[in-house]
Amino acid sequence: MMKIAVDAMGGDHAPANEVQGAIQAANELGVGVVLVGAERQLHDELRKHGWRGRAIEVVDATEVITMSEPVAQAVRRKRNSSVHVAAKVVADGRAAGLVSAGNTGAVMGVAMIKLGSLASVDRPALATVLPTVTGKGALMLDVGANAECKPEHLMQFAVMGAIYAREVIGIPNPRVGLLSIGEEEVKGNDLTKEAHKLLKAAPVRFTGNVEGRQIFSGDVDVIVCDGFTGNVALKTLEGTIRSLLVALRSELESTTRGKLGGLLIRPAASSLRARLDPETTGGGYLLGLRGIVVIAHGSSSRVAISNAIALAGRGIEHDIVSRLQQTLPERVVESSRSTNPSGTTRG
Amino acid sequence: MMKIAVDAMGGDHAPANEVQGAIQAANELGVGVVLVGAERQLHDELRKHGWRGRAIEVVDATEVITMSEPVAQAVRRKRNSSVHVAAKVVADGRAAGLVSAGNTGAVMGVAMIKLGSLASVDRPALATVLPTVTGKGALMLDVGANAECKPEHLMQFAVMGAIYAREVIGIPNPRVGLLSIGEEEVKGNDLTKEAHKLLKAAPVRFTGNVEGRQIFSGDVDVIVCDGFTGNVALKTLEGTIRSLLVALRSELESTTRGKLGGLLIRPAASSLRARLDPETTGGGYLLGLRGIVVIAHGSSSRVAISNAIALAGRGIEHDIVSRLQQTLPERVVESSRSTNPSGTTRG
Repeated sequence: MMKIAVDAMGGDHAPANEVQGAIQAANELGVGVVLVGAERQLHDELRKHGWRGRAIEVVDATEVITMSEPVAQAVRRKRNSSVHVAAKVVADGRAAGLVSAGNTGAVMGVAMIKLGSLASVDRPALATVLPTVTGKGALMLDVGANAECKPEHLMQFAVMGAIYAREVIGIPNPRVGLLSIGEEEVKGNDLTKEAHKLLKAAPVRFTGNVEGRQIFSGDVDVIVCDGFTGNVALKTLEGTIRSLLVALRSELESTTRGKLGGLLIRPAASSLRARLDPETTGGGYLLGLRGIVVIAHGSSSRVAISNAIALAGRGIEHDIVSRLQQTLPERVVESSRSTNPSGTTRG
Repeated sequence: MMKIAVDAMGGDHAPANEVQGAIQAANELGVGVVLVGAERQLHDELRKHGWRGRAIEVVDATEVITMSEPVAQAVRRKRNSSVHVAAKVVADGRAAGLVSAGNTGAVMGVAMIKLGSLASVDRPALATVLPTVTGKGALMLDVGANAECKPEHLMQFAVMGAIYAREVIGIPNPRVGLLSIGEEEVKGNDLTKEAHKLLKAAPVRFTGNVEGRQIFSGDVDVIVCDGFTGNVALKTLEGTIRSLLVALRSELESTTRGKLGGLLIRPAASSLRARLDPETTGGGYLLGLRGIVVIAHGSSSRVAISNAIALAGRGIEHDIVSRLQQTLPERVVESSRSTNPSGTTRG
């Protein structure tokens, strides 16, 4: 049975949602889960929900990295944190992948230490499939692992994203766009202007800059950006979808005609909502590591945690790590290594 | 009669939409418009739409700055561009404000030269009111004038935004948020972490970091960010609203029940659309200049141009420039001048 390690203490509603998500995943997906965190608390939660199966095991971790602590320090000092121990479980081969709804920077830092990155990658990137009106979705990276990026990082993200889109999503020749503030090459900040040049020479089908309005319209298959910009765009997109559906509902409820219309459109609205709900993706992969790591929203519900575990499972089935390793061109390695020899600075 | 200078050659559909927008503004708002651009072309357009009034005058400009040319060079060399001449019309007092749907960076650069910035401001910021589900809107700045910002620029944006929200929008004690990738102070990139510290000491009601999902929910009255991030967030928000309404329509049209429901919800959906449509705001002010400058979308329609002219008119009526000048605290001036003596670098 495939086993996934879950950092059970990381999320905003930990460990309750993590435990319930693990139970749901074990029951519905038939995967094994290694819950890592305060042992007693986890057993209590499991009991509370009547769990008696064997697919979930508990591994103790005595510390927790919170959302509000400085990342570098926490990664260095809290060696017994749930994310450290969970990453070690994966590094030791006792689980095939890791899921955390915790502090993204901490998960990234710990994963870099315990699992390491692929030879061709300086900085792993958080990649997530965003909903698009076309229904196909767009892979966006980085959406939050690297708040500061260099141009060659964006080029590496593009190469990883294109490989992922081709090998895992099944898009033969994925279009790659660079998120910027104008379609013209000269528009952007220092980072995107430099990255634009590198991308034109990169081994991907680079179609130029895309603007924020093109994320949801599905104009490209892969969108590349630094982790700060990507995170802002992702949350703006998700927040707008949610708020707009709420606004539409309250607008409809203000008139009788609207109420009737609202009843009639309910199936269509629900279908749209389900298709666009970020919970259904469950989170994103940290691409570029020597292991499967899925980061879920801090506010993940039970369902979102279960979906994140499913996402990790798909990553393992698709053997993403080997595919990236085999397909990443040496050329990218060299050009980036030469301009960024250390490759380990953290934003 | 109040007169507004319009850069008639700047937008994607120039000068057709600029001319029609000017006619609409002259007819409906009773303002005078100085159309600046290729004289003959403008007279042809005016004739084409049967304009015979006296409220629109034409001033010739022989050059055009396009969206795709490097800004610094264009600002320096194209002294006879429509935006240069239009800014001069304002500087000479022949119009009380400037509207352009052209290259934002070029308008900013030219306005800095021809009009100058307020004593307390290093970098003017493009400020626009975004739709929120609360209906009150949120002022966001910078949404595209400064692709690269320093922490003290963000602090100045906060002070200007708060004054604007109080004096013009009428919010007594506006809440100011810093756009970042986590609500916790330690989350963000180097710029926001440093700006967070400055904002805590700034003379505004700083309520901390906000995430992308909080823009549309109306949690704060003023949102501060660098121009790259703000532009991405703005366009993501606008694009998502548009795409989502299109997606809902096509979802509804796929079933008979949906079609009927769609008919019934039409008034509610239209009202929502009108409230959220970026065209209704028409653009944003470049706050911090010694003059009223409104930047409209490059793709502005006739209606959007007319609304941008109306926005410039409101800025003049509210005397935004004097209010900012009188209310900007000296303290901000000094702290920022000391850390950024030149104050004129452009991203």
